[in-house]
Amino acid sequence: MPKPFDLTLYLVTDPRLVAARGLLTTVDAAVKGGATIVQLRDPDAHGRALVEQARALKALLAPLGIPLIINDRVDVAVAADADGVHLGQDDMTPADARAVLGPQRILGLSVGNPAEYAASDLSGVDYLGVGPVKATGTKADAGGAIGAAGVGAVRALTRLPLVGIGGLATADVADVIRAGADGVAVVSSICAASDPEQAARALKAAVLAAR
Amino acid sequence: MPKPFDLTLYLVTDPRLVAARGLLTTVDAAVKGGATIVQLRDPDAHGRALVEQARALKALLAPLGIPLIINDRVDVAVAADADGVHLGQDDMTPADARAVLGPQRILGLSVGNPAEYAASDLSGVDYLGVGPVKATGTKADAGGAIGAAGVGAVRALTRLPLVGIGGLATADVADVIRAGADGVAVVSSICAASDPEQAARALKAAVLAAR
Repeated sequence: MPKPFDLTLYLVTDPRLVAARGLLTTVDAAVKGGATIVQLRDPDAHGRALVEQARALKALLAPLGIPLIINDRVDVAVAADADGVHLGQDDMTPADARAVLGPQRILGLSVGNPAEYAASDLSGVDYLGVGPVKATGTKADAGGAIGAAGVGAVRALTRLPLVGIGGLATADVADVIRAGADGVAVVSSICAASDPEQAARALKAAVLAAR
Repeated sequence: MPKPFDLTLYLVTDPRLVAARGLLTTVDAAVKGGATIVQLRDPDAHGRALVEQARALKALLAPLGIPLIINDRVDVAVAADADGVHLGQDDMTPADARAVLGPQRILGLSVGNPAEYAASDLSGVDYLGVGPVKATGTKADAGGAIGAAGVGAVRALTRLPLVGIGGLATADVADVIRAGADGVAVVSSICAASDPEQAARALKAAVLAAR
């Protein structure tokens, strides 16, 4: 089993949104503000660049005890000794990924709604990303928005830890947490913020206040 | 070390070129015609589809003793228990890939010219793909054509087995083999042929005749 991990405030990076400020600067600010787990997501990057980015992030995050999750690429996660992988429904199945990852790394899966949850093979899955809660511009292939009620509907089906994701701002957090999410995952609300540290701090405070 | 493998006629699949006939039908015809090793290359496909394609190809090829190589995705190769991985210069480094693959799988690397060969970390590499020999339309990011002379220039630098690749038709094979290549790798000349089996047979005969 993986070590315990904290889904309270889950940062997912976006290469375009962090381009001006820099990936490491953005992530550093986010964790200073209270992000508890970080996913490197850059679907257009080649493997070599991803491994380099992952190693740089790991050097930043590991001393802080913040897990680094790699989107999609199980091989990159193993090569960079990241803490885990997050899979979409088009990515390798969780069972296949688990076989490559070994038992100790964290494995997350995106589910878009209760039907997709029910159709998913969850063997080896440690947590779920549920959404999009609201419409989002950062993921072209995301399904329809399910709202906090959709998060609650998935929550009712599983004991797995889960985060709501998709277009979430601080004002949306309370509804998602009250619907049963263990935390919130955000892209734009931190990566595109004028002050990512302050943005993270406000998001985390909203999660803690809603519990 | 991997089991011995035969680079005489190396088929690289192209999803667009095999679309009409089908991937498995094309590969089946190519190996009937004498292809000795097959690479699954589909850079736009998601991980789940790649694993499914790889498993289907493995079921076809393993009983024939034909190695299946996966382009780029080390995780897909491990998940589908393929025989190896082929890396480009933008993909994970060979050393990183080898660490994920283990010692038994075949690891190939593309090198575009002698300078790129000299700059490459070859630790863990079992063979080289050298080219493009001629200009090619099937790989948008390929470098400049190096001709058979370029293959010979890399041949002079290494004892690794190598194939020439890039725009090769049957009429080009003799020059590439005489420049020191152990075989030829082709995409269009088989995948886009009206009769892939016959195309493979002609290419293989040309390799054997030129040795």
